[in-house]
Amino acid sequence: MTKVIVLNSHDIGTLLDMPAVIQVINDAYTEKATKDGEIWPMVYNAFSEMADTDIRSGLLRSKKIFGNKELTWFGNNSKKSLPELHGVVTLYSSETGAPEAFINAPALTGFRTGAAGAVATKKLANPNSETLLMVGAGGQAAYQIMAQICVLPKLKQVLIYDPMSSENAEKFAQELSQKLTTLFADSIQTNQPTVAAKIKERIKQIKFIAASDIIKATKDAQVIVTATPSTKPLIKAQWVQPGTHINAIGADMEGKQELDTQLYQNARPFVDDLDQAGEVGETQNPIKEKVIKKADVTEIGDVITKKAVGRQDTKEITIFDSTGIALQDLEAANLVLQRAKQFNAGVVVDL
Amino acid sequence: MTKVIVLNSHDIGTLLDMPAVIQVINDAYTEKATKDGEIWPMVYNAFSEMADTDIRSGLLRSKKIFGNKELTWFGNNSKKSLPELHGVVTLYSSETGAPEAFINAPALTGFRTGAAGAVATKKLANPNSETLLMVGAGGQAAYQIMAQICVLPKLKQVLIYDPMSSENAEKFAQELSQKLTTLFADSIQTNQPTVAAKIKERIKQIKFIAASDIIKATKDAQVIVTATPSTKPLIKAQWVQPGTHINAIGADMEGKQELDTQLYQNARPFVDDLDQAGEVGETQNPIKEKVIKKADVTEIGDVITKKAVGRQDTKEITIFDSTGIALQDLEAANLVLQRAKQFNAGVVVDL
Repeated sequence: MTKVIVLNSHDIGTLLDMPAVIQVINDAYTEKATKDGEIWPMVYNAFSEMADTDIRSGLLRSKKIFGNKELTWFGNNSKKSLPELHGVVTLYSSETGAPEAFINAPALTGFRTGAAGAVATKKLANPNSETLLMVGAGGQAAYQIMAQICVLPKLKQVLIYDPMSSENAEKFAQELSQKLTTLFADSIQTNQPTVAAKIKERIKQIKFIAASDIIKATKDAQVIVTATPSTKPLIKAQWVQPGTHINAIGADMEGKQELDTQLYQNARPFVDDLDQAGEVGETQNPIKEKVIKKADVTEIGDVITKKAVGRQDTKEITIFDSTGIALQDLEAANLVLQRAKQFNAGVVVDL
Repeated sequence: MTKVIVLNSHDIGTLLDMPAVIQVINDAYTEKATKDGEIWPMVYNAFSEMADTDIRSGLLRSKKIFGNKELTWFGNNSKKSLPELHGVVTLYSSETGAPEAFINAPALTGFRTGAAGAVATKKLANPNSETLLMVGAGGQAAYQIMAQICVLPKLKQVLIYDPMSSENAEKFAQELSQKLTTLFADSIQTNQPTVAAKIKERIKQIKFIAASDIIKATKDAQVIVTATPSTKPLIKAQWVQPGTHINAIGADMEGKQELDTQLYQNARPFVDDLDQAGEVGETQNPIKEKVIKKADVTEIGDVITKKAVGRQDTKEITIFDSTGIALQDLEAANLVLQRAKQFNAGVVVDL
């Protein structure tokens, strides 16, 4: 029988450090650009307006793995005191076709989506940025903020704006320092003590402030991350200052929108996957309204592999639209698997 | 954390009895016809001529489950003393989106594919058939033969023809009675003693004979099952007697063929899924050669639900082309899961 390792959300928390995830997500975008990785067609099904599932799959040739991630969202689960997200990444050996690991998908998705924003910020934001504005205070926010802290060495403050509730933003901001420390430093203390210490130190240096005025917050920020389920623009073009970099994380299906399409008139747009972003990402909106053409958009992998230029000067406004690609899931899953082997984590089952 | 049950090939062998699987595969075809089940787009990838993988997924509304099966075939694994097939069925609750089970896919696929042929035989073959010809003596043959025995009460003999090697057919025929008893009766002795006793009794009543002359064997048989990787016709039209029913199981991709397309001039064609069979199944060949049109082909689910007629008289030649649909995998997986709960089988892991 085949031995398969099961890695749950707790294992992922103890094994993954955000700087390492950022590195492998950088690899994932590179592998897309160099075609070393293959992305297979996505399967999507909506059960209702409040529940859907998607299956992303592909091959990472250099890592000798392939596999799939099924992620399910059941929006009414909170009423039943259940998590809204569930799912599994299954990794296979591309040398034998044998399954190697079952990995909790929501925990892994948090890390890889946070890291996606960080890779874009590292390539596109002004490196001296001191203020980050986080729009949205849901499940993704802590991952996004932690990842941004890792790649912005001069960061001094994080403003948090919640379009749903300023009370929620207040509470979130107050608890954030402790939450980040617990989630991303204490958890890896045993396996990665040096990284844990550095992350703890960085978190201490940063102020977390709830923002009630989105106009002022947008003007103050050099880097903005949006991670909301919004279907209407939250950030107006005229508020965004020259030199700002924006990561638009929330839009992942038709009809979703976080940014004013007029912003694209004076900004350079970047995406993880051109076809996907143009259909279901933030980028769908300016393309539909003909503010930009698909040909104006650059894939981040082409910037990483120097096929395309990133930021050209300190005054440019850059936008990165992340819709998520299977190679991110496979890279992050492979990292967890390798570390689980190294630290003898997880449970092995006979299949 | 979510509790997920892991069911390996041994668990499947002890939990599934072929008559019960035949019943749920009948349900799967019904659910396709009534649209109670949904089949989502298949993902297929060939790594090379000797290795591929596919992901089948869908929803079984009435059973409140959805999920996916990734099945991998690495044809060179036998050189490494590894199984050629690997894979996993992952079942989810359609009420919460939470994963419920990880199930060994090759073992489950053996059962559900055997049962597919049996459902078609029950609906389409002459019920008094006494001779079955099995073409192919590979991994599927035992499952196909066992399933046919379950639905042909008058069956007296099984002829086995192996287009690759008559020696192999001889060896296979000699060992078959014992092999079927071990695989399908002894294995379920504890959980399903009554069914086990009946199956044992039926196996004893049947002669298993290697056939070296495919022309004579075809003429002698009232039911024929082909399960080979052939790309050329193995059964010629002029050998097939009036009243014969044929299950064509082997063809599952472009270019595969087991039957002479001329056979379709005088036969009524049935399939599990019209679009899929017309593209990758046996049915692709007579359609390409314009011997039949897609409109001439009937889905088996329509026969089961009486939207279409099956066999009309004892002289008709009927052909069933099985390409495999996700609803079969989900129904069989659900049966294993329910039985695992009943008999407290499998290993539970925290995800």
